[in-house]
Formats: sequence, structure tokens, C-alpha cells
Amino acid sequence: MHRTHTCGELRLEDLNEKVTLAGWVQRVRNKGGLVWVDLRDRYGITQLIFEEGEVEASMLKEAGALGREFVVQAEGTVIERTAKNDRIPTGDIEIRVSRLEVLNKAKVPPFIIEDDTDGGEDLRMKYRYLDLRRNVIREKLHLRHKMMQETRKYMDAKNFMEVETPVLIKSTPEGARDFVVPSRIHSGEFYALPQSPQTFKQLLMVSGFDRYFQIVKCFRDEDLRADRQPEFTQIDCEMSFVEQEDILEIFEGMIRHLFKAVKGVDLEEVARMTYADAMRLYGNDKPDLRFGMPFIDLTAEAQGKGFNVFDNAELVVGICAGGAAEYTRKQLDELTNWVKRPQIGAKGLVYVKCHVDGTFKSSVDKFYSQDDLKDWAEKAGAVPGDLLLVLSGELHATRKQLSELRLKMGEALGLRDKFTYKPLWVLDFPLLEWDEETSRFHAMHHPFTSPKKEDIPLLDSDPGKVRANAYDLVINGVEIGGGSIRIHDKETQKLMFKHLGFTEAEAQSQFGFLMEAFEYGAPPHGGIAFGFDRLCAIFGGSDSIRDYIAFPKNNAGRDVMINSPSIISGEQLEELSIAILEKKDK
Amino acid sequence: MHRTHTCGELRLEDLNEKVTLAGWVQRVRNKGGLVWVDLRDRYGITQLIFEEGEVEASMLKEAGALGREFVVQAEGTVIERTAKNDRIPTGDIEIRVSRLEVLNKAKVPPFIIEDDTDGGEDLRMKYRYLDLRRNVIREKLHLRHKMMQETRKYMDAKNFMEVETPVLIKSTPEGARDFVVPSRIHSGEFYALPQSPQTFKQLLMVSGFDRYFQIVKCFRDEDLRADRQPEFTQIDCEMSFVEQEDILEIFEGMIRHLFKAVKGVDLEEVARMTYADAMRLYGNDKPDLRFGMPFIDLTAEAQGKGFNVFDNAELVVGICAGGAAEYTRKQLDELTNWVKRPQIGAKGLVYVKCHVDGTFKSSVDKFYSQDDLKDWAEKAGAVPGDLLLVLSGELHATRKQLSELRLKMGEALGLRDKFTYKPLWVLDFPLLEWDEETSRFHAMHHPFTSPKKEDIPLLDSDPGKVRANAYDLVINGVEIGGGSIRIHDKETQKLMFKHLGFTEAEAQSQFGFLMEAFEYGAPPHGGIAFGFDRLCAIFGGSDSIRDYIAFPKNNAGRDVMINSPSIISGEQLEELSIAILEKKDK
Repeated sequence: MHRTHTCGELRLEDLNEKVTLAGWVQRVRNKGGLVWVDLRDRYGITQLIFEEGEVEASMLKEAGALGREFVVQAEGTVIERTAKNDRIPTGDIEIRVSRLEVLNKAKVPPFIIEDDTDGGEDLRMKYRYLDLRRNVIREKLHLRHKMMQETRKYMDAKNFMEVETPVLIKSTPEGARDFVVPSRIHSGEFYALPQSPQTFKQLLMVSGFDRYFQIVKCFRDEDLRADRQPEFTQIDCEMSFVEQEDILEIFEGMIRHLFKAVKGVDLEEVARMTYADAMRLYGNDKPDLRFGMPFIDLTAEAQGKGFNVFDNAELVVGICAGGAAEYTRKQLDELTNWVKRPQIGAKGLVYVKCHVDGTFKSSVDKFYSQDDLKDWAEKAGAVPGDLLLVLSGELHATRKQLSELRLKMGEALGLRDKFTYKPLWVLDFPLLEWDEETSRFHAMHHPFTSPKKEDIPLLDSDPGKVRANAYDLVINGVEIGGGSIRIHDKETQKLMFKHLGFTEAEAQSQFGFLMEAFEYGAPPHGGIAFGFDRLCAIFGGSDSIRDYIAFPKNNAGRDVMINSPSIISGEQLEELSIAILEKKDK
Repeated sequence: MHRTHTCGELRLEDLNEKVTLAGWVQRVRNKGGLVWVDLRDRYGITQLIFEEGEVEASMLKEAGALGREFVVQAEGTVIERTAKNDRIPTGDIEIRVSRLEVLNKAKVPPFIIEDDTDGGEDLRMKYRYLDLRRNVIREKLHLRHKMMQETRKYMDAKNFMEVETPVLIKSTPEGARDFVVPSRIHSGEFYALPQSPQTFKQLLMVSGFDRYFQIVKCFRDEDLRADRQPEFTQIDCEMSFVEQEDILEIFEGMIRHLFKAVKGVDLEEVARMTYADAMRLYGNDKPDLRFGMPFIDLTAEAQGKGFNVFDNAELVVGICAGGAAEYTRKQLDELTNWVKRPQIGAKGLVYVKCHVDGTFKSSVDKFYSQDDLKDWAEKAGAVPGDLLLVLSGELHATRKQLSELRLKMGEALGLRDKFTYKPLWVLDFPLLEWDEETSRFHAMHHPFTSPKKEDIPLLDSDPGKVRANAYDLVINGVEIGGGSIRIHDKETQKLMFKHLGFTEAEAQSQFGFLMEAFEYGAPPHGGIAFGFDRLCAIFGGSDSIRDYIAFPKNNAGRDVMINSPSIISGEQLEELSIAILEKKDK
């Protein structure tokens, strides 16, 4: 070992001990006859001292000349500091160095290795190994480590078996695009990387594994939006002989365990809401419940008073922003412009100020009397000092717009504290959703989700109305997990594929093995998967997942550190029996 | 929940309790008025009883007609069995069923779901989900689960951080063939799947992570030999500021922890042997030390007596098979034929029987006197009743042949008990090995392994003699882990690449990022990786890893259950800008 202690562990109790430390030079203060060096490693910082008369002149000189991020080994004695530093645990002591060795030099790093760095995103991605040296980043990955260990502890204690499913599987056109891997031995054929281990975990239930989990890499070849990664990690789980309630209970337990063990937080009980209610009250299937501000349907009240915009709207709906009646003209104009941006797409914004004197002032005073506005305010539960914000138009679009406005107002009013946690189960998702582009129904969750028994008759008459045994776990407006009770018999699965537009041959060639497995004694089963990167980010209080991934790819799916993807040799291509087509224009 | 209890937990204490069980029908015994059903799940088997008069005739009939592997739910009362079965923990009770529901029917499985099955390898691979239902297989995967959890417990307690490294990385021509993944966004470019996270874990050391581990999937596109898988799992580890001794200590600790926690075995101290000694004494860099039978060099003694075969040999070397002097002519002929098979390749086999009366009988009596043979026997430490087996020829080939013969004799003499464990560190591996095919040196371990300081001068004069700071952990003749102290400075790494035949441009384009990282303050570091599949097989007492992998591929790299690899659509190919070349003849 190149050290006897880490840079984080020496204290006053260790006075006069002879020690050897090794680490990185964080900072050098050179006062001529006196040189201090802050030596850093993963565990902390310890101060080294070199004093004229105490050490040879050559060592004093060498210490003073140490560069940032040099890797050094220092042997010496623990002494008490004259000027203590109570901001670090080792701040009472320092090391009077008797031997100094530079283990490795370092060029000046391209950005400063401190919590606040001067490095831009691109530079830090290229030198990710230096960015990872910063405490703020390494701590995020340490949080991730703890989350993994605690997840496994909980699952193991609940009798879940961790089973590794294959990474080289088969491409299926359902869902997002697959990454594929050409087979050399079977030329012309390809493996695919899994978007999730869905079919394998269901097969494990057919195998009688009863309770399965895995923390597993999954892959999606999508056009990357900000904060999406082509490879990501899931906590993937499946259970047999369960109903929805059993799954909710086990995984509410997991989340509560994680909050307690990793953050010391006693998470409150997970609230529950149907998908229909979530859409009606928050315009969103993952409502942020750190604040109220539910939607108030004002359609009945607002129509028939001569205001064409409302009269022609499918929905008139508002939110009540508590205490915001004093918003200025300028602030309201800004809000109006904000909702009219193409990203939101509203035509305009109606406001009603509920003044403290009991009067109302709105942008539609021409059409609505004080009594009309009072009715609105009462329906909204508004009190004097509040501000109503109202949108109108087609049902789905208006809900979506108001949901965005609600989140913005929550933010503006300081109601979205990142260390307050409001968990929510959203239940009874629709089984199918209509896809305009392909003019057919898609599985909202995936094709293995079971419909609610009582809704099966609707499959033929009104497929969009069929509810699924599907559930999402949402925290603070972020979906962190989702799952369902699965179909476990061949006939229902075939019916489902039919409704999703699969021909019988397609269903057979892609999922024949699963349907065949269902014929050999498949138990009722269900499961859930959590987005682990996202869960870590929530725990860390971040919006972005990127810092919770050791070596993330950029928005173009590129690892700029190792420069990948890259070209491969003609020999490799030939062995794989593939050729590259001329570059497409992009 | 479709059950109140599992099929493994009810006991006499639960008498008269009303319970609901769910599981698979293992066996039905139908005596007309009395039907017993063995209900099975992951946790055990519980007997259901249906008795005429106690249940309705229809239920009696239904129970009697249940097929093997039907999934059923049964409600009833726990009663005491008249005929107890002490071979199962639930054998004192049975369930008098009051309600029976078939949750799912099952076709007759293509092979019997019992510990001894009638299914052949191919059939069991195709219906892997049924093979996994067999207790013997599921227990192997349960062992694997325990190994994973205990590995993590140990590593976490030792301050190792689990960090996930990327799966989509960059292809490098060094080592085995990569699996590659065409990039859709960057057409003409490819990701590669990692053969190991080697460079990433080294970068984590440059980042100051200090102690890293990961249980991680790795990939090699090799022509598959028996018991190789294209995707396999490693326990991958790296540490900073360490010397070889520190690594040996930590990971000897890990193996001992696993043996204790998973098998209740106190593993003996791990023996140590240099590579040179292992080759000299056992002709093998992974000697099986469950038995002795070391090589005895008889070159000096055997030459110069007129036996041309020995006179012309580089090496004459033997083993002493204890108590085998009574081997018959037929047995000795069989051994001779065995070593002459092309897989072994010896020209012949010389034997010396050490008779209990003190005389010797050999196949070369024409050339050697009783005194000569007595000298051999003495050198070999043979006692009356032992059998010497002697091979000769070129040094390396002869050692290899005798190593095989030694293992065969160990097997034949019952010296290789699969529940005896003899762990061994093999040390001081050569840095380089000569490759006849490419006429250049290859890295024996990988290009990041550091040479022993004192051997660096040999790099130019006698590269094959340079020893590396490299070590393997061997148990019972199986290599379960290997690692090294790494190079951590750019100049040595460049030198190494030069000796491996890289041009400077090649080294830069493939590993430039690592060499650049070494310039920013890389600490001394080293690590190790364990083959996790193999480790599990050793713990389970199996020679084959396949049963320790939930969904293995066959020897042609094919998953015959899901039928992968498979063809993908022309649309997919077009999006990826690749085309398939005409099939090669194979």
C-alpha cells in the first residue's frame, strides 16, 4: 500500500503518529520558508506542512513547486495545527512531512477541479475523468452506489431473486427502435439489445421463479432529446400470483426503504389517483403534488355570456394561484406571452384578480359581471388576494397547456422545493392509445399489459376506453416507475396483438415463444420497472440524469471522451458480411 | 395475492388454519374416492387431499383430472397427515381442499419437470423456461443470486464503489473480436460492446474513485468452444495506491467470505506459486492442487543410455501415480493410446511399475537397468506400489501433454473431489507471449499490465523473459480470476504499445484518451476480474457454466428459445445505412 491512512481519517487522537498519505495536490500555499499543501483523495483533504529548518531546502523547494493535481506520497508526523480549520474533519491536524515523493506529475487541467468549475459542458464531457474528480460529481455517483446496494438489500429480504437476462436478444418492431448487433457466425442475422427484459422476466414467472428483480442496462435507439441516454438503467421486477394491490404494497415499501436508508427521510404514504382524475385535475399523468392548484372546470359558468372564445371552446378551465392577485400588468403579459409560445401553444390567457377588498378585476370584464367572477372564484376556492388563470379550447390541448402553466406558477410561487417529496400512484391507465401517424392503436404501456376484466367487452366497441391494470409511480411530477399486471394466457395475448394490428404471422414470429410458454402453465403475474438514473437524480435533488451516470453520452449519442461511435476496419465489416451504404444527407 | 402461504411453509403448528395456496401440479394420485395432488412452487411442495364425502363429486373429478403443470389455486384447511413424509418439510400436513380453481391449464410438457429429466440438451434449451422449473436448475440460479449479494456486501464493506461503465463503447483490434453496433445517427460508424470495462475502470482510478467494482456483462465474438458464451459476467475490480500484495489480500478475503457465507466452508489460505514453477511442476498455469503428483524432471537420468527417443528429447519428465503399479497391460495400453490421440499429441508413453517386492518393470527395460529405474523412482519419491508415467519431447509440448495425463490420473485415482477446494495464486506471469501466427509478441494479460521494474531492461534484449506484475486466482485447476498492477504513466504505456507492434498513430487513435488521462495525475493502481459464471459453477460443483446462466446461448451462439439472432427488416438496415453482403460459404 502506498499509504497508511486516507486523506480523510486523521484526527487529534493520531497526534505524533508516523503516517504515509497519498493523493492529489489540491492547493499549494508557498510563503517562502513555509509551504502548505492540501492533499486530496476520495475520503477528504489533509494539510501537509513543510517548514524551513525542519526539512531540507531541496524538499521545501520541491513542495513549493508542486503543481495542481500532481499525485504525491508524503511520509511524516501528525501534529496539531496552530490555526485550526473547522470546515473539514481533518482540520485540527496537519502532517509535518519528512519524505515527499511525486508518484506522477500532472499537466494543468483544462478546467478547475473544484465544486464550482470554470469548465463548460463539452470540455467536461471530453475530460470526464477529470470532471469525476470533483467532489460534487463523485458524491452523486456515491449516492447511486448506495441506492443500488439498498435496493438489493430490500429486494433480497423480500425473497426476490436477482437474475441476469441476456443482452444479446432479438429485434422486435414494437416500441422504440432497437440497437442491433450483426452476427458474424450467422451472417445476415442480427441480435438486438434489449429495450427492457420484459419477455424474459415473464418467462421467469412461467418458470416459477415467483419473485425476480434485476438492476439492468437497457437500450433505445431514439433521437435523443435533452436528458435521454441511449443506454440507461432500470430496476426491473416481476412477481407471480399477485394482484395490483400486492405490487403497489411491495414497491411502496421499496421506495420508503430507499428514502429512509439513503436519505434518512420518512416518506409519507404514497397517494393514489386514477389516470382519469390526474388528467382532469392536473392535465397530466404525472402530476406534481408538492402543491395543490388543481384545475377548476369553468366551462358551464363561462359559456353563454357572449365571449366567443369561451363559447366555442370544448373546455374552459382555470387554476387558482394563491396570493398572486398583486401580479403586475407586466407579469401578466409575460405569462400570456409564455403560454402563447409554440412550445405551449395557447391562444391567450384570461386572468381574474381577486382583490382583498372583495372586488374582481379580469381581462374579460367586458363579458362577465362581478357576480359572474365571484361564482368562478367560489368554484375555485379562491380567497381575496388570489389570482385565477384561465385557458380554453380543445379538451386535451387545453389541459396540456394549463398543466404547463400550473407547473410554472408552482415554480414562481416557490411551491416546488426539491427536498420535499410527494409520491403518487397513478392507476387505471388506458390500455391503448390512438396514434395519428400510423392510424392505429398502440399499447400505452406495452402489448403484455392486461385489460381490466370488466372493460374487455369494450375492446371491440370502444378500444380507447378500455382501462388497463397498469400503474405508474410518480414523485414530484416525475414518473420514476411503471408497470402492470400482465396477460398470462395465450388467447388474451393473441386478442391483444390483433387489436394492435399484428397479423397472426407477425405475432407468431415475434412473440411465438412467449405465447407458447403461456400454454405450459403460466401463473398470474405482474411487475414494475423503475428508471434508476432518474430515481437517483430525484434523490440527489437534480433535474438532470447525466451527472448520475459515470460516462454519459452527449445529445448526439456520442461518447466524446473515447470518441465513439467510430469507424471499424474493412476486415471487420467483411467478417460480419455487411457493407456501409453511402452516407445519407442529414 | 392469489395465496395466503407458499407451498413450502405450512407445518403442524398451522393445523386447522384456513389457507389458500397456488402453484403447479407436480403429481396427481387418483384412487377413485381419494385424490392427492402435490402442489409445487419455488418454495416447496404441499399435498392437497380431496376425499369422497368431504368434497362435492364434481370437485373430486376435477382434481383427479388435473394435468401435470396445471396452475391451480386451492383453498382449504391444514390437517395432519396419516402417512407422514419426512423427506419434505411440509410432510406432516396436507390441505383438505374446499375450493379448487384452475388458474391456467398446461399442455403436456415436452420433457419431465423433475430433477432427473428425460429431456435432451437441445429440447431443454428450446424450452428453457420449463427447464428452469426444475429444482436442480433453479437452485443453481439461486446460488448465483446469493453469490452476487454476498460479493456486493463484501465489496461495499471494503469501501468499493459500484460504478456502471458503458456498454456502448469503441472497437479496438487488440484482444478478441468485438461485437459491434451500427450507429443510426452517425452512419458508417459503430459502437462496440465491451470485452471488459478495462479502460473505464482505469479512468475511474485517474478520477480518484480509489476503489471500484462492478458485476458486469462482457462480450466476446469468438468461435465458441464448449462452455464459452458470447456474453458472460465478470466481477470487475480496481484499486488505487496499491501494490500486488494489497490486491491479493483483499481478494483472498473476498473468496474466503464467499465460501463462508454461501457454502459455510472455511477456505484454507490461498497458496502461492510463480508461473515458472507452475509450468515446471504441473505443466500448467492453473494447476489443480487437490492432489500432488508433481512433475519429476528425469532428463539427466534418462539420457545417454542408448534410448534414442529420450536422448533426442529436450525434456524427459514423469509423474508418480501413487498405488497404480497394479495397472494391467490393458490399462497401460489405454493410457498410451489416450496420450497419443491428436488432442494430446504425445508420441508414446513410458511406464515404470515399482513393485512391492522392490523390483521394477518398465516399458524400456531394454535400455535401463534396475538401478537406473531405482534412481528414477527415488527422484520421484515413488514407493513400492507406485507407477511412474514418463513422457518426452519438446519442452512446452511435453509439459502440456503430461499436464493432461496428470489430470486424467488424478481423476482415475479419485483425487479430484469436487467439494474439496484448493485455491492458489499464480504469480509473476510473463508480460508478453510470442504469437506464431502473427510473428509478434502479444500481451499475455492485456497491454495495460505493468512489467516488473527489474525486468524492464529485458524488454529490448529478451522480451519473452520480462515478467509482469500479474496474478491469477486458480481453484481446483480452474482460473477464476486474473489481474495485474497497471501501467500508470504515459511513457511506459507508449513503450508497451511499441513492443506490441502498434504504430504511434494506432496507439493514439485507439488508446489516446487513456494515455492523455495518464498525463493529468494518474495514481498507481491495479485490479482484478473474476469470471462470475465460472465462479458460480465451481461453487455449485459443476464443470459447466451453462446451467448457471438463466438464458444461455448454444455452441453456435444462438438462443434457440427466442430464435436469435434473426433477420431484421430492410427498413431497419436502411436506417442504419448498412447492407448485407452475400452469404459466405462456411
